[in-house]
Amino acid sequence: MPHIAIDRERSAGRIERDVETLGGPDYTTSAEAIRRYAYILEYRNTLDYFTRAFQAIGFEVSEDPVGTLVARNRPRGERVFGIGSHCDSNRNGGKWDGTMGVVTALEVCRLSVEHGLDLGLQAIAFLEEEGSGFGQMLLGSRIMAQHVSEEDLRERFRAIDDGRSFWEHAQDAGYPVERWRESAHVLDDLTGWIEMHIEQARVLQDTGNRIGIVTGIAGYVHGDIAVEGRADHAGGTPMGGRLDAGTVAAECILELERLATAAGRGTVGTVGEIAFEPSLINVIPGRARFSLDIRGTDEEAFRGVARDIAAFAEATAKRRGMTARWAERQTLAPTPSDPAIVAALEAAATATGEPFLTMPSGAAHDSMAVADRAPIAMVFVPCLDGISHSPAEVADPADGALAAEIILNAIAALQ
Amino acid sequence: MPHIAIDRERSAGRIERDVETLGGPDYTTSAEAIRRYAYILEYRNTLDYFTRAFQAIGFEVSEDPVGTLVARNRPRGERVFGIGSHCDSNRNGGKWDGTMGVVTALEVCRLSVEHGLDLGLQAIAFLEEEGSGFGQMLLGSRIMAQHVSEEDLRERFRAIDDGRSFWEHAQDAGYPVERWRESAHVLDDLTGWIEMHIEQARVLQDTGNRIGIVTGIAGYVHGDIAVEGRADHAGGTPMGGRLDAGTVAAECILELERLATAAGRGTVGTVGEIAFEPSLINVIPGRARFSLDIRGTDEEAFRGVARDIAAFAEATAKRRGMTARWAERQTLAPTPSDPAIVAALEAAATATGEPFLTMPSGAAHDSMAVADRAPIAMVFVPCLDGISHSPAEVADPADGALAAEIILNAIAALQ
Repeated sequence: MPHIAIDRERSAGRIERDVETLGGPDYTTSAEAIRRYAYILEYRNTLDYFTRAFQAIGFEVSEDPVGTLVARNRPRGERVFGIGSHCDSNRNGGKWDGTMGVVTALEVCRLSVEHGLDLGLQAIAFLEEEGSGFGQMLLGSRIMAQHVSEEDLRERFRAIDDGRSFWEHAQDAGYPVERWRESAHVLDDLTGWIEMHIEQARVLQDTGNRIGIVTGIAGYVHGDIAVEGRADHAGGTPMGGRLDAGTVAAECILELERLATAAGRGTVGTVGEIAFEPSLINVIPGRARFSLDIRGTDEEAFRGVARDIAAFAEATAKRRGMTARWAERQTLAPTPSDPAIVAALEAAATATGEPFLTMPSGAAHDSMAVADRAPIAMVFVPCLDGISHSPAEVADPADGALAAEIILNAIAALQ
Repeated sequence: MPHIAIDRERSAGRIERDVETLGGPDYTTSAEAIRRYAYILEYRNTLDYFTRAFQAIGFEVSEDPVGTLVARNRPRGERVFGIGSHCDSNRNGGKWDGTMGVVTALEVCRLSVEHGLDLGLQAIAFLEEEGSGFGQMLLGSRIMAQHVSEEDLRERFRAIDDGRSFWEHAQDAGYPVERWRESAHVLDDLTGWIEMHIEQARVLQDTGNRIGIVTGIAGYVHGDIAVEGRADHAGGTPMGGRLDAGTVAAECILELERLATAAGRGTVGTVGEIAFEPSLINVIPGRARFSLDIRGTDEEAFRGVARDIAAFAEATAKRRGMTARWAERQTLAPTPSDPAIVAALEAAATATGEPFLTMPSGAAHDSMAVADRAPIAMVFVPCLDGISHSPAEVADPADGALAAEIILNAIAALQ
């Protein structure tokens, strides 16, 4: 099957126009950043924008019982290939995260029409990926995958803005939230799924690649270690008589770095949060608490690091006369990409002649939930200096156009 | 000269009564802790309590132009030996810190009268040692030592409660603050000075001693190190491509511990505060800031540690591709005790037969300001588990009585 070459300049122009329009005042509550999340007017405007755009190319648009946008060019029951991302933002977000993926999915649909391919397609714009409305990341796709309970939706998940439940907010927005389980049907007809997203890291930029083909989404262990020492006076307590919880934290930070590096296979480990108590210049830390984010696409490797650092913390605290306790926040298994979709993406990328890389995704994405029901893969494009979740986020519409060409060709090859 | 044995039980009873009275509702604004500071009603009540008590034993009581209480049994111009401490508290303080020292000084004065010694004495209750009123530690003694400027008092030092200046507050309380420089005259007639204070650390308790005779008050360097890395996504950034500011902080915490221990001569080093930015579990720390408290009575030793850790931070950051900057907050030279006063205290302590220790003071005290003008020493008594600046602070009035006996004898021997 010959490679379908598109007019990338035209596609880049359309992607840029869509992204810039959705960066305008009708689509964000903040003048300094992109801020939109489920059930607010600016989110509604965003769904309406996409509805009009998909309808303009003959797609039928609907919303699932909680407000996930679905656009397809085949009746229910017919097989379609899924594409899309999310169009909510971080509270202090940029224009590209998520939205560029939905915009690029729209562009793939346009190209399919314009090139007379008439591929069976279904685009999805997931709800609440960022958790800005209810503090729950990947919420829309977790609802679709039935990874939440009705209790979660009725009671536990509450709006950051007013503390009212997700359930009430969805009802007020006119959604039949009591039918939330039907959201699963959105994935019924999928033969496969490709999500395009900005990389949110620097690997593509640093290696000079325009496209990343994602071989798997990292799983992770999130947890905390709490060290109990003794908060003595920094002046009056000799070095030999201290139970300084901060020193245990320091040893753990360096050991985590060593363990993750030694584990290899893309395993990474990060201490992103730290707090000493009482946090005074002249008092020895009586308590230290720090977070651990340990990830990878090789589950055995990253789980091993998590076990090892918990044991190290305990042993180090004990050696120093203190105690340390590991508490897990959350674990998530890795999500491998489908080899056939990856191969189709690689073939299409090779045909474009542009530099690309196969790579894992360290960040979590809605595609993880789709993977329960259909083979998936993802395509990354660079973002400047890896900056994301910030108004300073910058990506290149030309990379979006290139991604659209690659995705279009991969889907055409897979049908 | 024979040792003067006192009725320690009676002294302990009086010390306990004074401390407990001053822990009552007229003397603190908080029901859960001792909270009193300059110019509030509860502080005025405390000064009035001491005024009555000193007047009852024939002492003349006055206040300096900012409210430092002075009680003496000789006219101005005659030589007196100084004793005292402060009677303000930490905002969440206990009954013993400072107040026990003033109470014990009062007890020494009582004993001098009762034993017919008629020692020339001057007791001082310093203002605002804890900085709870204006955020300025050792404020009263620094005013007395003229270690502040008029600009500080008029403008820079502002009340934590209402932001108004120290100057205004002092005026409102009826003090002729414009004559603040005359506060220096409080120290004009001193032949020497002894301050009793709770230890605020665990050395006495851990070594089973009831009395600490302070050979010197530690000087210190207070500073911060700020590390600049890069806040990349914790999932998307390989271990080899990170500029993790937290790892530099961790190396510095452990190196400071090593350097202070190696320096010996009582040198101590503490990282009490730490902050990572942006402080999210899934973002690599782009910035780390941590405080350093480096102390000792050997100035060369602790200054050496401060220089070495600043250089280490810079080199470690550089090795990891980052930068680190040391910024000094404050330095203070150590204050050696007067060998003759220390010897007199040692002789008196030996005569009591009770276990005592000569030791440095790691904490700063008002005695540092007095040392500009007169030979000084200090006496420590244990506090339970070293806990201080807390309602859980506990000391033993019997140790106060023992300290009173030792101080009384030392002063008698020195006259």
